[in-house]
Amino acid sequence: MQIDQIRTFFIELQDNICDAIANEGKEHVISDDWKKDSKQTLAGNGRTRIIEKGNIIERGGVNFSDVKGMSLPSSATATRDELKGLPFRALGISLVFHPLNPYVPTVHMNLRFFCAGDIGEFTNQTIWWFGGGIDLTPYYLFEKDACHFHKECKKSLDNFSTSYYPKFKKACDEYFYLRHRNETRGIGGIFFDDFNELGFDRSFELVKRVGNSFLPAYLPIVQRRKRLEWGQREKKFQEYRRGRYVEFNLVYDRGTLFGLQSGGRIESILMSMPPVANWSYAFKPREGTPESKLYRHLKPFDWINFEKDSTA
Amino acid sequence: MQIDQIRTFFIELQDNICDAIANEGKEHVISDDWKKDSKQTLAGNGRTRIIEKGNIIERGGVNFSDVKGMSLPSSATATRDELKGLPFRALGISLVFHPLNPYVPTVHMNLRFFCAGDIGEFTNQTIWWFGGGIDLTPYYLFEKDACHFHKECKKSLDNFSTSYYPKFKKACDEYFYLRHRNETRGIGGIFFDDFNELGFDRSFELVKRVGNSFLPAYLPIVQRRKRLEWGQREKKFQEYRRGRYVEFNLVYDRGTLFGLQSGGRIESILMSMPPVANWSYAFKPREGTPESKLYRHLKPFDWINFEKDSTA
Repeated sequence: MQIDQIRTFFIELQDNICDAIANEGKEHVISDDWKKDSKQTLAGNGRTRIIEKGNIIERGGVNFSDVKGMSLPSSATATRDELKGLPFRALGISLVFHPLNPYVPTVHMNLRFFCAGDIGEFTNQTIWWFGGGIDLTPYYLFEKDACHFHKECKKSLDNFSTSYYPKFKKACDEYFYLRHRNETRGIGGIFFDDFNELGFDRSFELVKRVGNSFLPAYLPIVQRRKRLEWGQREKKFQEYRRGRYVEFNLVYDRGTLFGLQSGGRIESILMSMPPVANWSYAFKPREGTPESKLYRHLKPFDWINFEKDSTA
Repeated sequence: MQIDQIRTFFIELQDNICDAIANEGKEHVISDDWKKDSKQTLAGNGRTRIIEKGNIIERGGVNFSDVKGMSLPSSATATRDELKGLPFRALGISLVFHPLNPYVPTVHMNLRFFCAGDIGEFTNQTIWWFGGGIDLTPYYLFEKDACHFHKECKKSLDNFSTSYYPKFKKACDEYFYLRHRNETRGIGGIFFDDFNELGFDRSFELVKRVGNSFLPAYLPIVQRRKRLEWGQREKKFQEYRRGRYVEFNLVYDRGTLFGLQSGGRIESILMSMPPVANWSYAFKPREGTPESKLYRHLKPFDWINFEKDSTA
């Protein structure tokens, strides 16, 4: 059955990613299997795999969940109001890694499958869609890393249609945007939702390609930056910028709001929170500093064609 | 004119409170006057007074603002949907102090005056109301402090009606509640909104009494606890609990959402954020520790009659 295939893929992907990241920093990964019974608003099961106080990852992890609910909350679909209130099933893998070293960027990926209406069996009548994306949030900007990340994102989509990367890249810039700060969360990546236009098999294939692009997109950046020396200044700045991550996730993120609205498992949902964040009144980096360089890139930017146009 | 009186009262209260707190810790208070012009969604002026890295206050301050807008946002009134979209004027004073010492509680007060509809002149046709409250968020619970705080809140209201304290106390417990954590934010206080039932003069008088009760309610607690010794353990716990403060303010707080929705001045709105917060997966204090004592009190509790019932 198709939903079982998705489940199997997500669980294997969770393990692959955790193993690779753990291997990179000799990290200890905690596994926390959980189950919520059906008397609650949201019933289901999942596995949260988490790293705290690691050598590379200060806090982060990968969450797998497979839940059912009686009434689809408003945050679950961006565009299709008519689905609200229907019974649904949602399978998802979600990850955030907040590295210790401020020169290593924070990364986020989410892949999800929803079906609504007739969820007992997967039939031609079942309404279903995939959603997901990957995006990168650096503290210190390296053009090389940003280009590499976007190229890997593009590669995972070009096989299906070359129209997807520009479309999903734009959606990512629009989604990961802090209106109250007039800043993007980071340097973007790709984002898609309500996706079923290729039919089930090819849509699932696309999601698999995106999932499998995570390690090639992120790991080389970790390897390149993990040994850079940092001090108090870089750490404070990283913690300050992590405050923006908190602001985005709690004010705007539909995945987080979906979890809170639907009575999800709070420690798994808030796994995305950084280990430490700080706030400072009206802070602005001084012109010409590496910190100010980041701010110049917190807006939509064409990272694919960047190297062609520049000698940097 | 009545609105000028409110403005004068709020500005004087801001200065009194800042001076008293600054005096307590020999703090340096920054004053930041600001103005937003009328081309923006929200026009007005204000003064943010802020303390950062103080001896007593690690971060916090008092914000005064006087703004006008063309369209009242949904977060501005809890119960009166018919006012949404009307032109409005809002005057408010809002404060949060996050102390350095984990034994000193965080405190919050907000007092606000709204008028909507015909705001050019204050006439019998103008729709107006006051709102506000004070509440306390300890990290280590001292019954004596909680009782004192609630008694001062009660005292400020009893002159008007003895029905107010129980009503406003209940509203505070209900408002400062993190549904996703099943916890109150702290040990409560008082909270009221859409308040005009005593007519303008007596309603304003009540707001003045509440505002003037801030220092007698909070300062003795600061004085009692500011010299208690603390270490790494207490600091980590304080920073962890401050994460809840962040969660509440960004997910639930109507004042914060009003500011974000109406295009308010972001650094003044997010003055309420703690200097540093941390998150840790599935943290629970061990039974019998001072940290676990706090958790037993993160629910509605009768602090006025506490001492009578207990020998503690």
